[in-house]
Amino acid sequence: MLIECIPNVSEGRRPEVVARLVEAVRGAGVRVLDHSSDASHNRSVLTLAGNAAALKAGILALFGAAIDAIDLRSHRGEHPRLGAVDVVPFVPIEGATMAECVALAKDVGAAVAERFAVPVFLYEEASDNPARKNLEDIRRGEFEGLAARMSQQGWAPDFGPAAPHPSAGASVIGARMPLIAYNINLNSDRVDVAKKIAAAIRHSSGGLRYVKAMGLKLDDRNLAQVSMNLTNYEKTPIFRVFEMVKREAERYGVSILESEIVGLVPSAALVSAAEFYLQLERFGEGQVLEHKLRSEP
Amino acid sequence: MLIECIPNVSEGRRPEVVARLVEAVRGAGVRVLDHSSDASHNRSVLTLAGNAAALKAGILALFGAAIDAIDLRSHRGEHPRLGAVDVVPFVPIEGATMAECVALAKDVGAAVAERFAVPVFLYEEASDNPARKNLEDIRRGEFEGLAARMSQQGWAPDFGPAAPHPSAGASVIGARMPLIAYNINLNSDRVDVAKKIAAAIRHSSGGLRYVKAMGLKLDDRNLAQVSMNLTNYEKTPIFRVFEMVKREAERYGVSILESEIVGLVPSAALVSAAEFYLQLERFGEGQVLEHKLRSEP
Repeated sequence: MLIECIPNVSEGRRPEVVARLVEAVRGAGVRVLDHSSDASHNRSVLTLAGNAAALKAGILALFGAAIDAIDLRSHRGEHPRLGAVDVVPFVPIEGATMAECVALAKDVGAAVAERFAVPVFLYEEASDNPARKNLEDIRRGEFEGLAARMSQQGWAPDFGPAAPHPSAGASVIGARMPLIAYNINLNSDRVDVAKKIAAAIRHSSGGLRYVKAMGLKLDDRNLAQVSMNLTNYEKTPIFRVFEMVKREAERYGVSILESEIVGLVPSAALVSAAEFYLQLERFGEGQVLEHKLRSEP
Repeated sequence: MLIECIPNVSEGRRPEVVARLVEAVRGAGVRVLDHSSDASHNRSVLTLAGNAAALKAGILALFGAAIDAIDLRSHRGEHPRLGAVDVVPFVPIEGATMAECVALAKDVGAAVAERFAVPVFLYEEASDNPARKNLEDIRRGEFEGLAARMSQQGWAPDFGPAAPHPSAGASVIGARMPLIAYNINLNSDRVDVAKKIAAAIRHSSGGLRYVKAMGLKLDDRNLAQVSMNLTNYEKTPIFRVFEMVKREAERYGVSILESEIVGLVPSAALVSAAEFYLQLERFGEGQVLEHKLRSEP
């Protein structure tokens, strides 16, 4: 069983601190696939992979090291944040279900609250509260507004004390599908067309349920781009997004030059595109050779 | 590094013997993903996976057990065969190159010849001799004609004695790409159209280099089918075959109902279809999440 975990911590300017955080996670026996820091955000993102037990140990170790090293009272950065370990999403990858990731988020949230006296808010699939599914909703007001917020009706944490940890604030822990960062470049420099297509396909303005989109200009290439996040590739598959953008572009006499996936993509998102275009029937993921090789020891 | 190996042995009627062969391979520490026997062919096919060292140990163990149990002088079956362990192809899967599979075929061939005094012919990618690349060419005349054949010019084995092993014959060992069994069903019962399309796309009659194809009728569904083997999905990709069949069918006013992959398919064959249809640029297999998770311990 493989789960991905992408903790975001509020430290991006002191490399020696980030190294200590990464070391703490590795010391707990968890694979750190990647980590990157942004100084202007003053924030770092780690990418971890493992089974539930390993990730729980790794995240607890990360909290221990982060609470020792980070004080939100003196933290400044462009990116909104609530806590030292700001956000911890668990993502099902292989042989793991969303239900298992939700259970892990709750288990880790309870353990963090108990061991470190940090209040924990559950989010996305781990939260049953519609007002507390969206990360931006939970993080509104940031660390500086947290004490006042938590005293309001409906903002008791899911685990831990009713007030922020003095230096470490609060943490948001949950489960979500993998995000796919997907861009489509038009065979045109007309950013107005890219913006119209983005408005047509994104959820917020009436489009597909799991698409966030904006239109922008790639100045260095003089191309218009529809830049997207696909937040649930099972329910809103990548091929349907591609075909819808293509059709909307045609209406303006514009064609698709190319598309690109930024960063990682789950194999299943590409396999489903192959199934669609090749009109594959009676196909199961057990037929993918690598899947079979991994699943049968 | 993962290599697949699909040894074919000349025993398909005595389950207790097949069980002993499978046990010998497992005893050498190799994963046996699958095995199946055909009584009329009097032949069994094993599917193994592992790294080079493990597969070498497993195949040597298989030869030991097969030579003990199988005597070609009394073996009868419908399927052509030269030896007790008739054919041993190594197939690159993940993190393994064709060059590594060729090297492994030569290493195993030399070891088999030395330990068991069985002559070994290299085939497919492991052979530099155009007359000895094709399995059917090497196997012509079968076990019964082998001694006469080996006395002819150009038929000295690549490894081992110049005459057949008395009971175990000779073995054909090599390296090849994974085969994909791929069928396209037409929205029509016209088998003549399926046959014309098959003739247009297959290598033997002027079509694509790595396609074998025939047209046939699925009587139970009253549909015509183009039934294919794709012998090198990197050089003749599945999407190009699909598009060519679709275009040829249009010429007869016929459309594609569906396609199907029979058995296993390497992930890369489907990913390349997604890349084609989604017009993906700047994409690398390192972006496939599962690939990254496996390749970086």
